[in-house]
Amino acid sequence: MAKQETQKQAPAAKTAITPTRAEDYAEWYQQVVRAADLAENSPVRGCMVIKPWGYAIWENIQRALDRMFKDTGHKNAYFPLFIPKSFLEKEAEHVEGFAKECAVVTHHRLIAGPNGGLIPDPQAKLEEPLVVRPTSETIIGEAFRSWVQSYRDLPLLINQWANVVRWELRTRLFLRTTEFLWQEGHTAHATEAEARAETEQMLRVYATFAEQFMAMPVLSGPKTASERFPGAVDTYAIEAMMQDRKALQAGTSHFLGQNFARASGIRFQSKEEKEELAWTTSWGVSTRLVGGLVMTHSDDDGLVLPPRLAPAHVVILPVFRGDDTKAKVMEYIDALAKELRAQRYEGLPIEVEVDARDIRGGDKQWEWVKKGAPLRLEIGPRDVDGNVVMVARRDRGTKDKASMARAELVATIPAILGDIQSGLFAKAKKNRDDNTKVICSKADLFDFFGAKEDSKVISGGFALAHWGGDAAAEAEMKEKLKVTIRCIPQAGFDGTPWADAVKEPGACIFTGQPAAQRVVFAKSY
Amino acid sequence: MAKQETQKQAPAAKTAITPTRAEDYAEWYQQVVRAADLAENSPVRGCMVIKPWGYAIWENIQRALDRMFKDTGHKNAYFPLFIPKSFLEKEAEHVEGFAKECAVVTHHRLIAGPNGGLIPDPQAKLEEPLVVRPTSETIIGEAFRSWVQSYRDLPLLINQWANVVRWELRTRLFLRTTEFLWQEGHTAHATEAEARAETEQMLRVYATFAEQFMAMPVLSGPKTASERFPGAVDTYAIEAMMQDRKALQAGTSHFLGQNFARASGIRFQSKEEKEELAWTTSWGVSTRLVGGLVMTHSDDDGLVLPPRLAPAHVVILPVFRGDDTKAKVMEYIDALAKELRAQRYEGLPIEVEVDARDIRGGDKQWEWVKKGAPLRLEIGPRDVDGNVVMVARRDRGTKDKASMARAELVATIPAILGDIQSGLFAKAKKNRDDNTKVICSKADLFDFFGAKEDSKVISGGFALAHWGGDAAAEAEMKEKLKVTIRCIPQAGFDGTPWADAVKEPGACIFTGQPAAQRVVFAKSY
Repeated sequence: MAKQETQKQAPAAKTAITPTRAEDYAEWYQQVVRAADLAENSPVRGCMVIKPWGYAIWENIQRALDRMFKDTGHKNAYFPLFIPKSFLEKEAEHVEGFAKECAVVTHHRLIAGPNGGLIPDPQAKLEEPLVVRPTSETIIGEAFRSWVQSYRDLPLLINQWANVVRWELRTRLFLRTTEFLWQEGHTAHATEAEARAETEQMLRVYATFAEQFMAMPVLSGPKTASERFPGAVDTYAIEAMMQDRKALQAGTSHFLGQNFARASGIRFQSKEEKEELAWTTSWGVSTRLVGGLVMTHSDDDGLVLPPRLAPAHVVILPVFRGDDTKAKVMEYIDALAKELRAQRYEGLPIEVEVDARDIRGGDKQWEWVKKGAPLRLEIGPRDVDGNVVMVARRDRGTKDKASMARAELVATIPAILGDIQSGLFAKAKKNRDDNTKVICSKADLFDFFGAKEDSKVISGGFALAHWGGDAAAEAEMKEKLKVTIRCIPQAGFDGTPWADAVKEPGACIFTGQPAAQRVVFAKSY
Repeated sequence: MAKQETQKQAPAAKTAITPTRAEDYAEWYQQVVRAADLAENSPVRGCMVIKPWGYAIWENIQRALDRMFKDTGHKNAYFPLFIPKSFLEKEAEHVEGFAKECAVVTHHRLIAGPNGGLIPDPQAKLEEPLVVRPTSETIIGEAFRSWVQSYRDLPLLINQWANVVRWELRTRLFLRTTEFLWQEGHTAHATEAEARAETEQMLRVYATFAEQFMAMPVLSGPKTASERFPGAVDTYAIEAMMQDRKALQAGTSHFLGQNFARASGIRFQSKEEKEELAWTTSWGVSTRLVGGLVMTHSDDDGLVLPPRLAPAHVVILPVFRGDDTKAKVMEYIDALAKELRAQRYEGLPIEVEVDARDIRGGDKQWEWVKKGAPLRLEIGPRDVDGNVVMVARRDRGTKDKASMARAELVATIPAILGDIQSGLFAKAKKNRDDNTKVICSKADLFDFFGAKEDSKVISGGFALAHWGGDAAAEAEMKEKLKVTIRCIPQAGFDGTPWADAVKEPGACIFTGQPAAQRVVFAKSY
């Protein structure tokens, strides 16, 4: 792999990323991920290597979410990677959903084969195959069965940070990989009402996280039956619009009813001393969020990071010619870095990276543009003399740089970062709202999504339309337009031009049946 | 599993844990883990469920170590769970070491079998089996191969937090499990000297962590050839003594020479423009540390946690009779909890748990004794009236409680926690030094370890003896006494009565060959 330091910017290129979003969005995405050094494909089919800059974003996502989970009373635990085949079989819809795409462990030893090389040892074949967890409802259900005896043991509020494996045929870095990292919350409750409240609470936690940390506006609400998690009674999701106007399902929260409690035998003695089945939920987000982050904010020069998730808020780039000015510049920079690190943004210290590598200044600058650092500070001898700093914001043009007094920068840096964060959110929200449309007939729906079918530029956006619950119409749209109902939105349009339209009752555009509100149709990842 | 809240303390029992350490150390360990609710066996052979209290200890271990890794310039990344069989085969000693105990994935789908139930789909057999990583040198080496081109790319300093699988026949919670959680550092360097310095630096990081956070004194130094990591040139370890006088290898740091660089093709162009092989290291600690923590400090009443790793530093137990005093007590407690949380211990806020569950006060108290909370505060109406608090320290007898003025407690709580932390370390160090002995002949070595062979109480301890490098003698001790050379200690005895004895040159107790220093023989986990 070519080193970025040695990549020259061809003078003719107007953007750091080729192709641009308008030219080929899918390829642009891959190139942004590569140029920002977030991740790469591994020699293991469908599995990625998450590189330090990408993993640091994931760590920031974890830190923020973990805090929110703990603040809502959840505790972390860890359950086995392997699930006995018989466990997966316990819930009929669940096994139907996952059996087709799971990694199966059949042996526990390799031995020398007849033709050299190693083979699975026939003597070490497992009596019962193990599945690498695609999700953990069944193995966690088994633990809950023994942990829950009485209503006093409920609610049981557990979260796990883990890797999972779903054998995917077509993979794409972060968005869909065979192995991915995620968190899965699993809870058990004494009543349906409590379990439903938990499901909705965690959906709200995800929406809050997406909007406040990722600066990614989301719709939220229940999925239709065809899009439910295998085994769930109801699945809720947060859905965001990417810059190509496709939807990304960014997090799901499932009300599992008593299905998994029945399958696993999670029973408890009620206050009234009756034996009852518990009500359970599960909810998760994954490294897919990093893909959503990339696709929401990045531009034709590469990654754009919202400050609240950026591994470095500020990158300082020393500019000096020869060793005589170096000492002076570095002394100034070290002092400035210290002052900046003493400031706090959203309750955490400002993260400052000083990039003093001995490579071409232009290359270095472009590297940090492509990596999406919110602020770049260039500092040379004249800046030192003037006690100023040359400031470039990643949310503005790469040539848009302004000199600022050092003291002013230090004093206002939390405000500048806050301004970048809110600006990114506003821009993403505008993109979504500009590409949302009320659709009143099937013909218009086809028109909205089908117009530019042959183009690499995605057509459509979010179509708000009445749907009366007809599964056949839903299936037809999926087959003909690759369009699905993303959710029946309950929140996310407040304060937008679409707030009223979405709540309005009307007649199904397919069947004329009455529909209580409009739903969101979109192409999706 | 019986709920602890409903377990009555039998009045006849003198200790909360049965059996005691003296009666049956191995069984005592299992009972401490169970009583503290740290972990349990899962239905998957050899895999454990880490329960919230145990996982919270692991999170604290992670937080401290992660900080130390980052402070020494390492960055986190993530590599695939699966390793293609051919990768494992690249390094001859490595594959020899791990092929015997690895989980092998052979299929990527389950389908309905002829007799009902699911079977691995013969149509979905992998062309090349995948091994669930037992350690990641080979798959990370493949990534490093493409990341490293020039000396400017070195050193490459990477760490991964991950789960790994080694198929173990005999497992014990935390100490030896088929799946475990760990971190594995992997670094590549331009010179042997730098790689050796890294290996030793990370050994020091582990020793510092063990002593300062776990309050567990450790010896550190190289292993003998027979105890090396498969494929390493040199393996270094930190070794601690448990209360049964057995050694626990608590962390290892490997100098891999150019073995894995050669196997993976990690080559770089030197400053002199010559192509050279990199020098690599790897180093790891695992959830085994939690087992070491339990066995170092716990007593016959259960877990004893060093404050720096305790999920809660302080547990407040309200004592009231009836609702009339409840409000008053709870108001006092909430205010006190707030004051305590505003204090900091070792740079972090004091963690306070208020246990207001409506269960018997005695049961509740014993639960927190068994969970090892460093401080228990009992507060009833009379304490509120006197503005005092009844304080019990876990490092003292369970009946040793003292009344303390509220303001004094708040002001001195960091000092009290510091005193508990250093007291635990001193006690553990005394145990180790009291059970270390200089041994000057093979007969004495047999006597030291063999005397009480039939007892459940472990004999021996650390034997310091001269060993001239004879592998046959080492093998004989392992076979006859189950005693191994734990390390050739370079650090860890400073300031103890054994500091000089260990450095003293002499004649091998087996062969009479000259030996530069004494080594440590012990039974081990």
